Amino acid sequence: MTEPFRIGIAGIGTVGAGLVKLIQANGERLCARSGRRIEIAAVSARNRNKDRGVSLDGVDWADKPEDLTERKDLDAVVELIGGEEGPALNLTKKALRNGLPVITANKAMLAHHGLELATLAEDNNAALMYEAAVAGAIPAIKTLREGLAGNRIEAVYGILNGTCNYILSEMRASGRDFQDVLKEAQDLGYAEADPALDVDGFDAAHKLTLLTSLAFGVKPDYASLRVYGVRQVTQADIAFADELGYAIRLLGIARMIDEEGKSRLVQRLKPCLVPKHSTLGMVEGVFNAVELKGDQAGESISIGRGAGAGPTASAVASDIVDLARGAHRPCFGVPVSELKDAEHADSATLSGRFYIRLSVVDKSGVLAEVAGILRDNHISIEAMLQRGRDPLQSVPLVLITHEASQSDIFEACEQISSLSSVLESPCVMHIEELEGE
Amino acid sequence: MTEPFRIGIAGIGTVGAGLVKLIQANGERLCARSGRRIEIAAVSARNRNKDRGVSLDGVDWADKPEDLTERKDLDAVVELIGGEEGPALNLTKKALRNGLPVITANKAMLAHHGLELATLAEDNNAALMYEAAVAGAIPAIKTLREGLAGNRIEAVYGILNGTCNYILSEMRASGRDFQDVLKEAQDLGYAEADPALDVDGFDAAHKLTLLTSLAFGVKPDYASLRVYGVRQVTQADIAFADELGYAIRLLGIARMIDEEGKSRLVQRLKPCLVPKHSTLGMVEGVFNAVELKGDQAGESISIGRGAGAGPTASAVASDIVDLARGAHRPCFGVPVSELKDAEHADSATLSGRFYIRLSVVDKSGVLAEVAGILRDNHISIEAMLQRGRDPLQSVPLVLITHEASQSDIFEACEQISSLSSVLESPCVMHIEELEGE
Repeated sequence: MTEPFRIGIAGIGTVGAGLVKLIQANGERLCARSGRRIEIAAVSARNRNKDRGVSLDGVDWADKPEDLTERKDLDAVVELIGGEEGPALNLTKKALRNGLPVITANKAMLAHHGLELATLAEDNNAALMYEAAVAGAIPAIKTLREGLAGNRIEAVYGILNGTCNYILSEMRASGRDFQDVLKEAQDLGYAEADPALDVDGFDAAHKLTLLTSLAFGVKPDYASLRVYGVRQVTQADIAFADELGYAIRLLGIARMIDEEGKSRLVQRLKPCLVPKHSTLGMVEGVFNAVELKGDQAGESISIGRGAGAGPTASAVASDIVDLARGAHRPCFGVPVSELKDAEHADSATLSGRFYIRLSVVDKSGVLAEVAGILRDNHISIEAMLQRGRDPLQSVPLVLITHEASQSDIFEACEQISSLSSVLESPCVMHIEELEGE
Repeated sequence: MTEPFRIGIAGIGTVGAGLVKLIQANGERLCARSGRRIEIAAVSARNRNKDRGVSLDGVDWADKPEDLTERKDLDAVVELIGGEEGPALNLTKKALRNGLPVITANKAMLAHHGLELATLAEDNNAALMYEAAVAGAIPAIKTLREGLAGNRIEAVYGILNGTCNYILSEMRASGRDFQDVLKEAQDLGYAEADPALDVDGFDAAHKLTLLTSLAFGVKPDYASLRVYGVRQVTQADIAFADELGYAIRLLGIARMIDEEGKSRLVQRLKPCLVPKHSTLGMVEGVFNAVELKGDQAGESISIGRGAGAGPTASAVASDIVDLARGAHRPCFGVPVSELKDAEHADSATLSGRFYIRLSVVDKSGVLAEVAGILRDNHISIEAMLQRGRDPLQSVPLVLITHEASQSDIFEACEQISSLSSVLESPCVMHIEELEGE
């Protein structure tokens, strides 16, 4: 038996304690799979005396996370502090500069500083691993980086935030409003006290940034992504979508399209409609789903828990075993020098099908005005719903379009907004129908 | 740039030609991901002159597959000949004995000779890789071996044969009989002229044998598996199941249960009923699905194409990139010396819910006789269907049981068979409802 593989863990919260438990419970298994005993040599956390439900007897405590990087006896540091900058980033940079491999679950840090960190990792020949950063129970990083290494990836789609998916599923199942379901999710521990990172889409956007880089060999570029969360999704939208055969999902989407003979990136992080009997439409509750399309493998989809102590610790353990076996991959699949700047598609040329909900005054002639604007913008209607009658008051009018140009849709919506009989800005969502579904 | 990674390919059929195409089309990508150029140095196939739609200019031809193992310039041999023995096995053994890594898609060979080959691989420090042997587009081997390395795996379930799933899906969609749909599948190229390997369940059983070994760290043991295919599934069964809310799927199932304080293996390769709106029930056509349950990660499921040139070549390419990067894992996840003999659960103690279809004479008193036997064997009925009336002729009687002991079910069915009013042996299928569905 070779030397043990010695790790230092920075941050012993839910995931950190879960990792300690995993290593204690499944130590033999880890040893058999990695060929080395996995040893927790040191930890660092703000409070030494907190009861975490795990024994840390015999483990050294570091006063500061960075102190772990000075230890000569460690084979890797596991960064579970979180946060895009601050101690997590300091620790990661110092460790990599010292040639010490880093395993992290920190998607925010990688989405914002991925290129810099990948460069540091490469320059110091130290691995930077982050299976736990995306969709815990699903080995999405490994699948893109290794499993589909022979494919030109054409698309990545995903339900990347379990909190949002729980909220959208519950709104549909129970007929309740966003605020009400969010409160429940917070009580159940599915949502944080400050839910912004989840419900405003940032967490999912961080993950999409990493998947995009791995899938297409482009530099991680969080800033280029316009992010929309689920706060604006109303119960009315969910009910109308359901009636029309759709479920609303917060999807992260990245695909390469051919534009003027060039591969260009289309990226979106938005609530959208998917057929309710499609695989993505059937993913309910706190689950994540990652759908990949490769030129060789075709489409595949994986569904599993994205967060929580067990799934996240499982993903960290996978990186530990890889490192202990000496596996070494470039951070974003290819060397930093080969990562390209993504060329973004011209959104004016994109097309799709759309869901449009208007609040209109219930009086004669409104529909003719709206229909006229759509016709003049080359948009044809596949389905229309109008619910309730309330003369001279506000009623919803819902439209599903045939394939239409995105710029025509936006132009038409602007014209519709300016009608005196239209009371609010239209709510517009993409309808995503993946091939093969 | 380091030396190219040079492979020899034995067998240039559909998959072999697909691999050549993949390497030619995505060579740059493979190089970026593996850090080495992938070079096809030599091939071997029975007919040199056949048009395979790919250029093999500049590639050496070996007269016999084994000749590849004598070449000093190869980094790995890719075995795509097929067949559990014969030239494939000869080639694989010779290569491993010479210390030459082998990549294979040959589940039959590995299911029958896996332990011997894994031992040879280990003794000669040569990798034996087989991502392409199970569920092409889904990295099932990699996920079990690496992605879930930190988990105690509790269960593996899968739709492991696309031909069978296509036939069962089409029978349900079209109302046609097995023979009719099989013929169509053959015409479409989804089934072989001799369909036995697929439709009698052997191919799926080979795959289940490999998944079981990887999941539970046990020796691959094909002989212990009783295999049932889809030939006996009638249109009547499919229609009755549908009416009761189920779809019929050929499932491979392996799970560890606790029996007398010991972990014991339950393994099954049989058609069974799954809720038609469950994830497995929704997998239609030639797709494969692999569902895993780990103590840490919980349940996850992956769905993708299991066969065909592209998905299989994609899986082979994944192994090539892993080898080119120097990744090296024990064949069944842990060293051969740590693989255990599986202890099988006592089937008498197992329980479940069952679908039972009887052919009975349509006369009074039959139902009372059947119900009496079930009651005497402690079996209670959840649902019953009787279709058609045809006095004194044969009519089907379908029952869904509550949870019952498997041995009680078999005992009751034997007693029912001996009734004069029962005309055929009962058709009995398990109902599988996975947790979380």
